[in-house]
Amino acid sequence: MEPSSSNSMQTDHCLEKAPMEVHQVAPPPHRSTIQKLKSRLKETFFPDDPLRQFKGQPLEKKWMLAAQYIFPILQWGPNYSFKLFKSDFVSGLTIASLAIPQGISYAKLASLPPIVGLYSSFVPPLVYAVLGSSRDLAVGPVSIASLILGSMLRQEVSPTSDPLLFLQLAFSSTLFAGLFQASLGLLRLGFIIDFLSKATLIGFMAGAAIIVSLQQLKSLLGITHFTKQMELVSVLSSVFHHTNEWSWQTILMGFCFLVFLLLARHVSMKKPRLFWVSAGAPLVSVILSTILVFAFKAQRQGISVIGKLQEGLNPPSWNMLHFHGSYLGLVVKTGLVTGIISLTEGIAVGRTFAALKNYQVDGNKEMMAIGLMNVIGSTTSCYVTTGAFSRSAVNHNAGAKTAVSNIIMSVTVMMALLFLMPLFQYTPDVVLGAIIVTAVIGLVDIQAACQIWKIDKFDFLVMLCAFFGVIFVSVESGLAIAVGISLFKILLQVTRPKTVILGNIPGTDIFRNLHHYKEAMRIPGFVILRIEAPINFANTTYLKERTLRWIDEYETEEGTKKQSSIHFLILDLSSVSSIDTSGVSFLKDLKKTLENTGTELVLVNPVGEVLQKLQRADNDRDMTRPGTLFLTIGEAVAALSSTMKGQSSSYV
Amino acid sequence: MEPSSSNSMQTDHCLEKAPMEVHQVAPPPHRSTIQKLKSRLKETFFPDDPLRQFKGQPLEKKWMLAAQYIFPILQWGPNYSFKLFKSDFVSGLTIASLAIPQGISYAKLASLPPIVGLYSSFVPPLVYAVLGSSRDLAVGPVSIASLILGSMLRQEVSPTSDPLLFLQLAFSSTLFAGLFQASLGLLRLGFIIDFLSKATLIGFMAGAAIIVSLQQLKSLLGITHFTKQMELVSVLSSVFHHTNEWSWQTILMGFCFLVFLLLARHVSMKKPRLFWVSAGAPLVSVILSTILVFAFKAQRQGISVIGKLQEGLNPPSWNMLHFHGSYLGLVVKTGLVTGIISLTEGIAVGRTFAALKNYQVDGNKEMMAIGLMNVIGSTTSCYVTTGAFSRSAVNHNAGAKTAVSNIIMSVTVMMALLFLMPLFQYTPDVVLGAIIVTAVIGLVDIQAACQIWKIDKFDFLVMLCAFFGVIFVSVESGLAIAVGISLFKILLQVTRPKTVILGNIPGTDIFRNLHHYKEAMRIPGFVILRIEAPINFANTTYLKERTLRWIDEYETEEGTKKQSSIHFLILDLSSVSSIDTSGVSFLKDLKKTLENTGTELVLVNPVGEVLQKLQRADNDRDMTRPGTLFLTIGEAVAALSSTMKGQSSSYV
Repeated sequence: MEPSSSNSMQTDHCLEKAPMEVHQVAPPPHRSTIQKLKSRLKETFFPDDPLRQFKGQPLEKKWMLAAQYIFPILQWGPNYSFKLFKSDFVSGLTIASLAIPQGISYAKLASLPPIVGLYSSFVPPLVYAVLGSSRDLAVGPVSIASLILGSMLRQEVSPTSDPLLFLQLAFSSTLFAGLFQASLGLLRLGFIIDFLSKATLIGFMAGAAIIVSLQQLKSLLGITHFTKQMELVSVLSSVFHHTNEWSWQTILMGFCFLVFLLLARHVSMKKPRLFWVSAGAPLVSVILSTILVFAFKAQRQGISVIGKLQEGLNPPSWNMLHFHGSYLGLVVKTGLVTGIISLTEGIAVGRTFAALKNYQVDGNKEMMAIGLMNVIGSTTSCYVTTGAFSRSAVNHNAGAKTAVSNIIMSVTVMMALLFLMPLFQYTPDVVLGAIIVTAVIGLVDIQAACQIWKIDKFDFLVMLCAFFGVIFVSVESGLAIAVGISLFKILLQVTRPKTVILGNIPGTDIFRNLHHYKEAMRIPGFVILRIEAPINFANTTYLKERTLRWIDEYETEEGTKKQSSIHFLILDLSSVSSIDTSGVSFLKDLKKTLENTGTELVLVNPVGEVLQKLQRADNDRDMTRPGTLFLTIGEAVAALSSTMKGQSSSYV
Repeated sequence: MEPSSSNSMQTDHCLEKAPMEVHQVAPPPHRSTIQKLKSRLKETFFPDDPLRQFKGQPLEKKWMLAAQYIFPILQWGPNYSFKLFKSDFVSGLTIASLAIPQGISYAKLASLPPIVGLYSSFVPPLVYAVLGSSRDLAVGPVSIASLILGSMLRQEVSPTSDPLLFLQLAFSSTLFAGLFQASLGLLRLGFIIDFLSKATLIGFMAGAAIIVSLQQLKSLLGITHFTKQMELVSVLSSVFHHTNEWSWQTILMGFCFLVFLLLARHVSMKKPRLFWVSAGAPLVSVILSTILVFAFKAQRQGISVIGKLQEGLNPPSWNMLHFHGSYLGLVVKTGLVTGIISLTEGIAVGRTFAALKNYQVDGNKEMMAIGLMNVIGSTTSCYVTTGAFSRSAVNHNAGAKTAVSNIIMSVTVMMALLFLMPLFQYTPDVVLGAIIVTAVIGLVDIQAACQIWKIDKFDFLVMLCAFFGVIFVSVESGLAIAVGISLFKILLQVTRPKTVILGNIPGTDIFRNLHHYKEAMRIPGFVILRIEAPINFANTTYLKERTLRWIDEYETEEGTKKQSSIHFLILDLSSVSSIDTSGVSFLKDLKKTLENTGTELVLVNPVGEVLQKLQRADNDRDMTRPGTLFLTIGEAVAALSSTMKGQSSSYV
């Protein structure tokens, strides 16, 4: 790097290096309003251009592509081989062994009959196998959606005193969740789930895991009179107000199985090859504990059991959907919240594993698949389902190649429904509690939280808000607070856009942030300011105040308070991606204000849209004539410095 | 411009021009989290740095500056001269002649006793003269705030059947409006009013003007049974359902005075020197019409008159403030809406005239002044007041130099309150209606609407929504819809940021939008992409899809579908002003995805904050090592082209 010499020399040097030819800022190619609107709509709703592959194909091929687009099974089905089937068969059986106990547990978490959890592990996976485009997603009920569904419905209807109504509302909520999910995909509004940022989700998941685990204290301690509230304080006070109900047999059994399950989980995490240890552990626990209870007649010692489950496949439930009366609002709201939460989980899981195996998952298509799965589910006695993270991980580790593993799982669950139901009669609730705790503990991701703290403090704050909101207020509020804060941050960024003073890096045409690059130097007589956001109604007032302050500070720093010290304010508009009428007025006002102090406003490199709007507003061609509009800062400085020298006598 | 030759030649040419020395991307100077937080808070809440002038001053001077800051009158007071007073005296009398009839009319618009309008033109101007920093603002009741106050309170309380309660609620709303305004200023949250964009305001004002004018049909046609609704359809149906109540005497009188007032307005608009014609016309109309009614005993012919007004100054009203019971919500809501609307008007008017005379108005300080003015007003029988556009324009044209013109106006109104009240007894309502119509007609700004259509179609849509919302639904809904759409546009811009493919302008180091500058050319083997927004949770999914599509389209355009055609994706991050954890993951994911297709991700010119976060997340220094991080696109292309040539055998 050259030794820095005096300012004026640098300027001269820069001038010598600058290309002699000054480039014009050309207006962008003309497009009509309709064309602009069309391309804007395409960018907004079809960023992935799903119809691209249809272009230039013969009609027959187009039909086939369309069918493959709607039913991805037609894409991979024809090439399906026995080798793939072997992998899918193993992984299908593995996730079935996880799905059966988890299905029963999660249904209990949602205050639904345990059998509904098994129903929900039978039909939806079949639907997803036909419609879904992820190869790793294992579909079924999940903990968080179950928790939210149960807690929201319990606010108005008691599952113990009116179980039929509760079930009806659960199916209706599932229908609305499915309709909502499918329409998000159909209307290509999938970006709505993007507003749940990673930080929000990490905080939310951890909070929900704790809430779910706390709920399991009921079965783990054998308490019979348990609070209906979800948040930390009332659950803990309920636990310690009913110490007389604690049952040592239940606690002992729960402790043993919890340790067993956690150990199995630990082993599989240390050695991913041993994935089957943690995958099989829940089923082993269920079988073992059922035998124990049956052998020792332990249900008479105060260990509560599931009880009789009805044999047979899913009964139809379209006659149980509930569209009228006072519960419609509740059902729609519950459907909306569980729909968006389960969608977020499903899409995130699908994308994670797609990235691992390097294939693409089309978000909007997935939404339609998950939505349809829930719509069909709601008519066949299933409640909200989606792609579960823990089960999909097992599926992936077990070597699943296609959605056929979901079919295998579904068939296995069907067998269980047809023939194994009597065996679950003596399964103790405490083991189900232990299974849930082990499943949700993985949702507390401390490592990710640390990483967020390291990278972005504000995201960490959002995460904490979601976490504590869920724990201390309610699941929905925690989520709402976190989304609210994230949106507020975005709005703040728009209202307070960054402005940066640029300096020249000696010996080059490069202009960079003066407060970042130490070698960057001011050019006397110029203030070079870069605005790093669209200029719009929400920030013009700020930008005006801030710009005038930059000029003022510059003058103060220079130590000269005379007006003539700044001849030109160069605004680098490269990063201003759009402008509105308020923004145009801001630039016009700024020009006028500056002219009164003898400073000229010079614009550099406005993008096409901005340039067009400025030209349309600038009737007397005052801002967009060649002398005040340049393509690069370097050219502007070079051209204006020469003017300045010619006129210098009039300024000083 | 050079004739364009083959691509490879251009690249070589570019390489020769590129500086041999490659500049390092330096990390920004270290700042602690506290320092960053401090500077962020300062940028957010104190962009104008109000304490700057205090720096380095002796203590005594600091006290004086503080006093001057709080009471701007101390700033200009000591230099006040007789010459200034002469100007202020003339303009004060002029606006008083406008304020008296307008005060009475606007109070009637708000369903308040006419005398309250005069009270509100006496105390608030005095308060503003001491606290306000605008030299042109003429303070008093305004049409839109009066309209909203009246219409919101009328929804729950009838001003005819319970006038005392109505008055109490009006004063209480004024108090809350004042408190809200003052606290916005105190908490430096002034940017909240920025969310009412210029387009929204133009549509809103025009709609409100029409609503206000329609309300005047009551007095202009002499109808006694008039609807309480505000929106177009019910008002018109009410007008045409009561044709039997139309009074020809009233209509004739109204028509004559309306023509007279509109003519006066027209004259003043054509020749600004004749500002006194339109300024004096309302008072002349009032006097003339009062004499006419008195002379012809016209009140007996069905021309309704104001009636007896009580003589004397403002009675105290703190005992009438109403904080309890079922109306508290209504009062707070009304205060909030009228507060924000009147604040917006006051600040906008202040800024407009400050820009004309080239002085600064401090938004947050003005908010405190207007807020305190309303708080004090609410205890002295005044309702919501602010700086009125029409009266301030007259004030400015009449040559007002300082806030003394407000004092003169106030004193004149005081005189009227003390001695002239009996004279207004026979003033007909129809003239007040004509005065209001003439005053609000100026709010319909068709020229500005055309300008908005020319510059920005979306802003035009926002304007139309505000306009039709106000006319057909309600004043608050119109405003809410317009603000909602504006915010949605901002969020859409954040969710769907612009990405631009850059090309090299031959013979230079300049890279510009390939689809804007025809001379810009691709560089074989490179895709150069510029992201023009902060990368955050709301747009990472979109950005990934869009980036992959850009690459795909590029490959399709090139006609070569082999993987090796693109060796480098250069991401120009100059315009990415910030990034969050989701954004960091996006870049990491993108790098991994691209590596699988043999393309390397290269970052160019990340700003300080973005660079720091990338470095913190990039444990294995994969993204931020010199070979994948450059200061300019030109240097990146130059450096990487040479690698490409060296390795080309391995690629092809």
